[in-house]
Amino acid sequence: MEQELVIFALALAGFITAAKLAGYLSARLHQPVVFGELLAGLLLGPSLLNVLEWDYLALHPKLDVLIEHLAFLGVLFLMFLAGLEVELEAMRRAGKVAIWSGLLGSIIPVVAAYGVFAYLFDFTPRQAVFLGLVMGATSVSISAQTLMELGVLRTPVGLGLLGAAVVDDVLVILLLSFFVAFAGAGVEGPSLVSLIVVVARMLLFFVIAWALGSRFIPRLTHWANRLPVSESLMAFAIVIMMVYAWAAEAGGHVAAITGAFLAGLLFARTPYRARIERGVASIAYAWLVPLFFINIGLQTDLSVLFTSTEGRWEALVLVLLAILTKVLGCGLGARLGGLGWMDALRLGVGMTSRGEVGLIVASVGIGLQALPASAFAAVVLMVVVTTLITPVALRLLYPRTAAATAAGSEAEGTPENQEDGA
Amino acid sequence: MEQELVIFALALAGFITAAKLAGYLSARLHQPVVFGELLAGLLLGPSLLNVLEWDYLALHPKLDVLIEHLAFLGVLFLMFLAGLEVELEAMRRAGKVAIWSGLLGSIIPVVAAYGVFAYLFDFTPRQAVFLGLVMGATSVSISAQTLMELGVLRTPVGLGLLGAAVVDDVLVILLLSFFVAFAGAGVEGPSLVSLIVVVARMLLFFVIAWALGSRFIPRLTHWANRLPVSESLMAFAIVIMMVYAWAAEAGGHVAAITGAFLAGLLFARTPYRARIERGVASIAYAWLVPLFFINIGLQTDLSVLFTSTEGRWEALVLVLLAILTKVLGCGLGARLGGLGWMDALRLGVGMTSRGEVGLIVASVGIGLQALPASAFAAVVLMVVVTTLITPVALRLLYPRTAAATAAGSEAEGTPENQEDGA
Repeated sequence: MEQELVIFALALAGFITAAKLAGYLSARLHQPVVFGELLAGLLLGPSLLNVLEWDYLALHPKLDVLIEHLAFLGVLFLMFLAGLEVELEAMRRAGKVAIWSGLLGSIIPVVAAYGVFAYLFDFTPRQAVFLGLVMGATSVSISAQTLMELGVLRTPVGLGLLGAAVVDDVLVILLLSFFVAFAGAGVEGPSLVSLIVVVARMLLFFVIAWALGSRFIPRLTHWANRLPVSESLMAFAIVIMMVYAWAAEAGGHVAAITGAFLAGLLFARTPYRARIERGVASIAYAWLVPLFFINIGLQTDLSVLFTSTEGRWEALVLVLLAILTKVLGCGLGARLGGLGWMDALRLGVGMTSRGEVGLIVASVGIGLQALPASAFAAVVLMVVVTTLITPVALRLLYPRTAAATAAGSEAEGTPENQEDGA
Repeated sequence: MEQELVIFALALAGFITAAKLAGYLSARLHQPVVFGELLAGLLLGPSLLNVLEWDYLALHPKLDVLIEHLAFLGVLFLMFLAGLEVELEAMRRAGKVAIWSGLLGSIIPVVAAYGVFAYLFDFTPRQAVFLGLVMGATSVSISAQTLMELGVLRTPVGLGLLGAAVVDDVLVILLLSFFVAFAGAGVEGPSLVSLIVVVARMLLFFVIAWALGSRFIPRLTHWANRLPVSESLMAFAIVIMMVYAWAAEAGGHVAAITGAFLAGLLFARTPYRARIERGVASIAYAWLVPLFFINIGLQTDLSVLFTSTEGRWEALVLVLLAILTKVLGCGLGARLGGLGWMDALRLGVGMTSRGEVGLIVASVGIGLQALPASAFAAVVLMVVVTTLITPVALRLLYPRTAAATAAGSEAEGTPENQEDGA
């Protein structure tokens, strides 16, 4: 037994080291940290190791289960943090740019994916819509970092980008909730009754979770913080996050990450928000989130992209469509919101990076069997490509001189801002 | 799959809530927090639930494995923190009181347990010695808290107690290392060659781990802290801790906790000690350590203590012997070190509480099959009893007036000091 336990510890050490070291090397090469962490996972997974034929996972009979569960906790923590970062008030004030580009940027990818993948490829409508949801996700931390380095984060483009990302997060979570609720009910061709049941159940979960949460979480947080027990505040936040994740799945028939996100939204309204965010981020980024990236790599076999012509085309179309629909959707939305064409283009390009949010949505799809294995590999490729090209493309869209002069004033790239955060 | 994952999340939430809430109630009743956390585990384990016949662990096929592995990480974190808290310099200066009482307080229990359990009960010599090791462990956080409340922590008794606890920790770890090394080699009646191999292997591990660690950990810590990757310092500390835990078992054939403790000692010599301690304590106490206490409860069936006469006698003798040998051993040591008889008695009583350290050692024994199941239940009972009576007995040994007058100046019982820390 002791032997299995230390192998588990060694495996965790190896995975965390691989992720962090690859993230560091990526940063050294002026690439996003997420790119390195994801690459480390791919190298440790079947994509490369099947070639080397060293099945190190077999050293411990339950290592895959353990990593999978810890990675799941990492996802919950990430979504909880995403919820914590949403300021509902700020969102209301975010203005038309954020709302329109968030809206079009999450709906156009879904519509386009449905049109292309259900008709040109042999995806079921369900799979095609899910692929659209994955394409609708966005992670702007990398773009925000780039705009900060360029010294233009506090311009209409930068602020619009941050606002649109929040709108996009909320919308994708909502669309995903609908999707999971219907998929769970087995509704491909829905009858009216089952449709009403599904929606009612989902709404009931949201209403109850929100009502109970906004009523009791603030005072319970206050109470937990004063308990004479170590780390009681952090333990309380983690417990509520986990209970909400469970309730979302078991009660609302929506995804567990929806519950974690909702819990984050609720804690964001307490005065302990900053402290909880610090503590949770520390637990998450020190080991659970790296394990999430590694686990994505372990579940991905990129070789399926090369062995079939169909797979190659799928991947190529997905990557192109993912870029195109975001640039178009968000850009158009930004233009509708009042930005000039050039600024609208910049915002659209900034929203292209998918980062960890795309992967999180995709991993929900794997659980639901809404994504075939070849499509999952294509999604990972899409995330890698969009994450890599976004900062490069953004820099190209700003004149060098403006960047150089503004850089001095604002580009204090602290380690915090280079994080693999949502 | 998603369904299993959320059941896992819900179970974690339930376990953490039970442990923290019971710890809080315990504190409200002026009892040690550890007592409540342990009791919560016992109530959730077979001791009570076998009576209710609700096998909730069966809701998730691998829940027991998952909890066991997370609890193991909790133990590693606890021992890492224990190592971090050791100041080798301070230990050298701690003086004769600490050294003598630490020495006698860890050796006398082993000798006594060997004499009593191998001869009066039908324990093998190996099992009897191991029981002695469990009795040699000490956790003085509860006594330190009590002395602080009485306003006498900064007297010779209080300082001697803190020093003796460190000496005791180091000695028990060393004795445990020897034990595990020999047990692992299957040496009951050792040949000279196998004995030399075992000792050489163990020493080699300590020398290499210490040499590499004291040479590279300080500069690597400095390097890790400056990486542009989130939580790189914390991730580095966790990785080294896990690698040392693995190397201790696989390389030195000693217990994994020895490696984690050693890693803690090494990080204590870096300038980042305080930051690492804060971060690691947060991760540990927010969820992994509560899971450790719960897991102890899940593995304990107290009913074996009541079903057999033998078991009842075993438990009774163990509890009495554990109290007697500590009071005598540590008290005698303190007297040898120069304290008066009354102060020596106080120090001996203060060392009686076993807390989590006794449980950690005992759980190593379970892995080695060095503790029969009935003895494990007796150990848990012993830990509960010694943890409960120590603060009460300590208060009785101080005159009320002294406590009342001194209390105002020093008893700033911050939540930090009431923790379930080592």
